[in-house]
Amino acid sequence: MAVYTDVPFEELERFLTQYDIGEPTSFKGIAEGVENSNYFLRTASGAYILTLYEKRVRAKDLPFFLGLMDHLAAKRIPCPLPVGRKDGALFGSVCGRPAALLTFLNGVSLREPEPVHCAAAGAALAAIHDAGEDFKSMRPNALGYEAWKTLGVQIGPRADEIEPGLTALIELAIDQSKPPALPVGLIHADLFPDNVLFTGSKISGVIDFYFACTDAFAYDLAVLLNAWCFDGKGHFDVRRGKSLFAGYRRRRELAKEEIDALPVLARGAALRFLLTRLYDLLHHDARALVRPKDPREFASRLRFHLKVRDAAEYGL
Amino acid sequence: MAVYTDVPFEELERFLTQYDIGEPTSFKGIAEGVENSNYFLRTASGAYILTLYEKRVRAKDLPFFLGLMDHLAAKRIPCPLPVGRKDGALFGSVCGRPAALLTFLNGVSLREPEPVHCAAAGAALAAIHDAGEDFKSMRPNALGYEAWKTLGVQIGPRADEIEPGLTALIELAIDQSKPPALPVGLIHADLFPDNVLFTGSKISGVIDFYFACTDAFAYDLAVLLNAWCFDGKGHFDVRRGKSLFAGYRRRRELAKEEIDALPVLARGAALRFLLTRLYDLLHHDARALVRPKDPREFASRLRFHLKVRDAAEYGL
Repeated sequence: MAVYTDVPFEELERFLTQYDIGEPTSFKGIAEGVENSNYFLRTASGAYILTLYEKRVRAKDLPFFLGLMDHLAAKRIPCPLPVGRKDGALFGSVCGRPAALLTFLNGVSLREPEPVHCAAAGAALAAIHDAGEDFKSMRPNALGYEAWKTLGVQIGPRADEIEPGLTALIELAIDQSKPPALPVGLIHADLFPDNVLFTGSKISGVIDFYFACTDAFAYDLAVLLNAWCFDGKGHFDVRRGKSLFAGYRRRRELAKEEIDALPVLARGAALRFLLTRLYDLLHHDARALVRPKDPREFASRLRFHLKVRDAAEYGL
Repeated sequence: MAVYTDVPFEELERFLTQYDIGEPTSFKGIAEGVENSNYFLRTASGAYILTLYEKRVRAKDLPFFLGLMDHLAAKRIPCPLPVGRKDGALFGSVCGRPAALLTFLNGVSLREPEPVHCAAAGAALAAIHDAGEDFKSMRPNALGYEAWKTLGVQIGPRADEIEPGLTALIELAIDQSKPPALPVGLIHADLFPDNVLFTGSKISGVIDFYFACTDAFAYDLAVLLNAWCFDGKGHFDVRRGKSLFAGYRRRRELAKEEIDALPVLARGAALRFLLTRLYDLLHHDARALVRPKDPREFASRLRFHLKVRDAAEYGL
């Protein structure tokens, strides 16, 4: 939920002189994403999202992210399409921040996905993995195993302020989450239900590609498992797991080493979100108008994964 | 800019079973208003705003506010129209809070209104005053002169923490802002540029009636003067003042005693926003995801009004 930068309408008008999309008829800040400022914009030519990239997204990475969305949209992945300026550029600046216009996608995010939605999410992830195969740019995962170790050190014993025992849990998990070498390619890396829009049980949109990077496909699946297959009480729901994997495998086959690695990757994915949420909570800036997310739900998922010995326990 | 309560889609679905507006195709929290949580909702039947009323708006006042919008919309004031439930009620509840569905209005809010926009705002205020004449309900102004005195006492010397000298300024202003008896009726009481939507130079929407009450018409005009006629540097712009009053008087005549009272009413209006902004800043709850507004711009406007002797100085 974020609007870090307040954009006066007159500043929007200046920005829009560089585009051929007509006069604005509606413009409102929206509570979407946690990293950037987002505005809903409507003109005679359609509905758009204006995104201002705040500190975590670096301008030098924008050609990767926007180029990727352009590439995926051309391959019929229902992702936002960056709108080009009159001069062909895919982004400009608003209020001193890099900013892009993207097409607005219909659909709603679910809080309590059913197995049918998990199957659709699995299939969408596999479709992204497929479609990214001939995307030429690379971007290392800035939140991979080495970053977990660094975050673990930066957070240190303060994790216990949030929940006693977390520091020891993190140490244990870092020790048991080192990922093996696996097939890599373009991954979304943050495909939570927040980032998937549904119309009924069909996916109408996949959004927020600002963690996308080059890493193991099976790690992306482990993120999906963490994000979609635990119920409101934090219990793993094997029906959702089964549907999610079945959906994925309808579009892309999993190698034996990918399946075998799933428990260690699932630990790593839970650890990644536990660490970044802890870091954000301990460094929370009240001015950001963002409610920090609770890290503890990922501590509980991590404890669950640490007991899993075999991908079959996930429904695979 | 507010989203105090996070509404899961499934909770929205439960709420919508009481309405006949079709399935949601889009649902996003929006940064609109500072008192309530607002969501943009689109269904096959149109676009709506879902408002959850947070602590400051009392459920017992909702029939007044929603009945008023219903009344004004019937008189062609372009305000949001509350959507009735299947059982005829104008509001229900979402996440334990009173909540209403209102029609979404196109248009954009301006930060730097030109005289032409001020004229339109003046005319819209007069049209509201006219249209409210046969609205039967009454609601005392909870932020009138007596409330200013109470707020002054509650804030006390802490005002000087925000800007040295404010405590003395407030005492002086309370002394010099007691409004005389004047024609009263239904007033908006908060018609800032934020609350007026434009399509080009025409008004397409007037929103946020949650301070509406029964008080002096000329006080409402004094609020409008404070809200629309100072430039980005805090200087009074007499061109805007002239346009604003001309716009108002095209729709409703001002009595001599209303014109004479304008300097004292303008002080009172500046004092009201200075006091509530000071109070909000001193009692700011970081969890509210609202950036408190700067009270000091109203201290500067108040100092200006304290020197005004005659409404002619405002362009009237």
